[in-house]
Amino acid sequence: MTKKKNAFYAQSGGVTAVINATACGVIETARGHKDKIGKVYAGRNGIIGALTEDLIDTSRESASAIAALRHTPSGAFGSCRYKLKGLEENRREYERLIAVFEAHNIGYFFYNGGGDSADTCLKVSQLSERMGYPIQAIHVPKTVDNDLPITDNCPGFGSVAKYIAISTLEASFDVASMAKTSTKVFVLEVMGRHAGWIAAAGGMASTEKDELPIVILFPEVTFNKKRFLDKVKTMVKEFGYCSVVVSEGVRDRSGKFLADQGLRDAFGHAQLGGVAPVVANIIKEGLGYKYHWGVADYLQRAARHIASKTDVEQAYAMGRAAVQFALQGHNSVMPTIVRASNKPYRWKVGMAPLKKVANVEKMMPKSFISRDGFGITKRCRDYLAPLMRGEDYPPYKDGLPRYVRLKNVAVKKKLNQDFKI
Amino acid sequence: MTKKKNAFYAQSGGVTAVINATACGVIETARGHKDKIGKVYAGRNGIIGALTEDLIDTSRESASAIAALRHTPSGAFGSCRYKLKGLEENRREYERLIAVFEAHNIGYFFYNGGGDSADTCLKVSQLSERMGYPIQAIHVPKTVDNDLPITDNCPGFGSVAKYIAISTLEASFDVASMAKTSTKVFVLEVMGRHAGWIAAAGGMASTEKDELPIVILFPEVTFNKKRFLDKVKTMVKEFGYCSVVVSEGVRDRSGKFLADQGLRDAFGHAQLGGVAPVVANIIKEGLGYKYHWGVADYLQRAARHIASKTDVEQAYAMGRAAVQFALQGHNSVMPTIVRASNKPYRWKVGMAPLKKVANVEKMMPKSFISRDGFGITKRCRDYLAPLMRGEDYPPYKDGLPRYVRLKNVAVKKKLNQDFKI
Repeated sequence: MTKKKNAFYAQSGGVTAVINATACGVIETARGHKDKIGKVYAGRNGIIGALTEDLIDTSRESASAIAALRHTPSGAFGSCRYKLKGLEENRREYERLIAVFEAHNIGYFFYNGGGDSADTCLKVSQLSERMGYPIQAIHVPKTVDNDLPITDNCPGFGSVAKYIAISTLEASFDVASMAKTSTKVFVLEVMGRHAGWIAAAGGMASTEKDELPIVILFPEVTFNKKRFLDKVKTMVKEFGYCSVVVSEGVRDRSGKFLADQGLRDAFGHAQLGGVAPVVANIIKEGLGYKYHWGVADYLQRAARHIASKTDVEQAYAMGRAAVQFALQGHNSVMPTIVRASNKPYRWKVGMAPLKKVANVEKMMPKSFISRDGFGITKRCRDYLAPLMRGEDYPPYKDGLPRYVRLKNVAVKKKLNQDFKI
Repeated sequence: MTKKKNAFYAQSGGVTAVINATACGVIETARGHKDKIGKVYAGRNGIIGALTEDLIDTSRESASAIAALRHTPSGAFGSCRYKLKGLEENRREYERLIAVFEAHNIGYFFYNGGGDSADTCLKVSQLSERMGYPIQAIHVPKTVDNDLPITDNCPGFGSVAKYIAISTLEASFDVASMAKTSTKVFVLEVMGRHAGWIAAAGGMASTEKDELPIVILFPEVTFNKKRFLDKVKTMVKEFGYCSVVVSEGVRDRSGKFLADQGLRDAFGHAQLGGVAPVVANIIKEGLGYKYHWGVADYLQRAARHIASKTDVEQAYAMGRAAVQFALQGHNSVMPTIVRASNKPYRWKVGMAPLKKVANVEKMMPKSFISRDGFGITKRCRDYLAPLMRGEDYPPYKDGLPRYVRLKNVAVKKKLNQDFKI
């Protein structure tokens, strides 16, 4: 009699408002196939949980706790920033993984993350052919950066896009109210070190019907101080105010991050700030306008309270599809989101081979950025709009969302030795 | 036959997520008493609209547009930061106000703002006895700072409190997920230059049932670097991470704002950042922890998408009460919120004489701050909880809230001369 295999699931890289919805999709779907999948063990802190045999027994969580993951932001099992080296460089790690998988009868490996994590998952998927341990490794896409290839978009991004569009809209209304005798420019710093997808979402606050003066600084467009100041000045002249949405990854002509202005504190120590205060200062010195600035940072990727319904549904569907792919016998693949039509928005689940996903970064197409480099095009709007659509509110108690914290009961260790990371 | 008097309404100071709900309360209530009140003229950009005879005819707006103000953040008619001087210092301004009021048959003056605006309203309310122009001036409370006296709380604050509590909760979940191999501390900067009401709201993310490691820096508590670092270290040792909520107004022993660190850019120019990066840097240098920081700025006070239901209701009620007070013949008063009971939360509308409101700042009671100075007490929780309670979502279209922008049709000028501000 062949023993039913258990599954391993872990979260990797920066977390999102909906990565737990994917976890929910994985666990609920696995629970629905108890004839084929045993337990789902979650890695505590990503792949580190696998290496250190620090596993969480998700079967100890109630159905309602697992269901509540769907509306809980962050990584319920802990995430990590840890990249597996290649087999030749660190064979010891792979042998350890096999030892842990073997000890806990793990035959399915679900890794939920972005580009780096896809690389880890690809390496694990090769354990079967290269080291003879039978495993099916499925990568589950997730990244607010929206930079994975093949998939039309990435779970996590739609909710950040919605948050940034709403925040830009609301802050623009605010600065418009104040502009006559006070603040004329509001600068909002958003995530996105290489690709400007999140910054682009700020442009969605302005619509054809209700135009708002929004200037976007993309990492894809080299910062030109004179052109930027001219643009802001024109906007303020026409509208009385303007909002600037700036990506953290904007660089100047020398390729240096704009945020890196060589600031020194009173003791001469280097002080690295965000890019928003730097841009605000450029405006003050160049145009003399009164300004305010904000930095959304974690707030944007944790904002489950205003997550996109599309995003929540897709995040869940990716988790479900990953388990289904495993049950169908696949290895070394990733479920993808395939856009079937824009109006009405229709999408379905596709499949991509992992070797075409790992370490490939999808940048914004040039056709998504307006000719002057400070805005988005209609093509970009058509792409972004459905991803932000729909509200999926969490339940509330006493004014606060009711997010779940799992018990995260550890699985008893079976191996004798510890493993040093 | 005595001619029906028109009303003047204007918004002053920093705007909020719910000041337009107050405008809605004023205009809808006045429209319900057409036998006694003629038109409601809004001042464009606060009192400046009155001085420059730049009036908006709100009767040109449809009932549905006015109703939509209830769920629209910011100041629909524009706000201002402009303080009337005393009658002796600038008699010219008062004569001008009377000229404008007379020309447009204005007998009711509703001024919607905080402490400084109450002072302006008080001065206008004295026009009757000191300059013989019959006017009833009612101040309508509004301030995210929650620092007006007599009233139990101020419209605008409850929604900021809810936003900061939710953001702190969500960011804490995020950093908790990342802490093992990456960020250990998240620092969130919030508004509040003198009083720590908004910072206190960050403490609401942690509950008795679900404790989170949150360290609050209040403007009421002098910053002590050693004690702060000890606190953060203890929290990180116990929980693995921590969140710091820092008020923009925190000062060191010498009374200097912590944000003012004498930073210089590459050219030696002074660079004023926010306090969040300064605190983050103190943590990095003192403890070596990896950190992230955010600055909520306008996002917090414009966040109508997650406004408190209590706050929206109270903001509307204050507008309605102001008109009712005027109809009852009152002058130089302000409607207040009177807390009748905590559990269940019950409140009613009261009335305060304006001379007891203007220029008085209500600080947080000492009993609201925990003994170590880094947290809030149960008394503070009992006070804050009902103010954040309830959700009042705006309608959405295509993923974005549908906020209204009024036509803001100007009233034809009747005076021959311009007025220089």
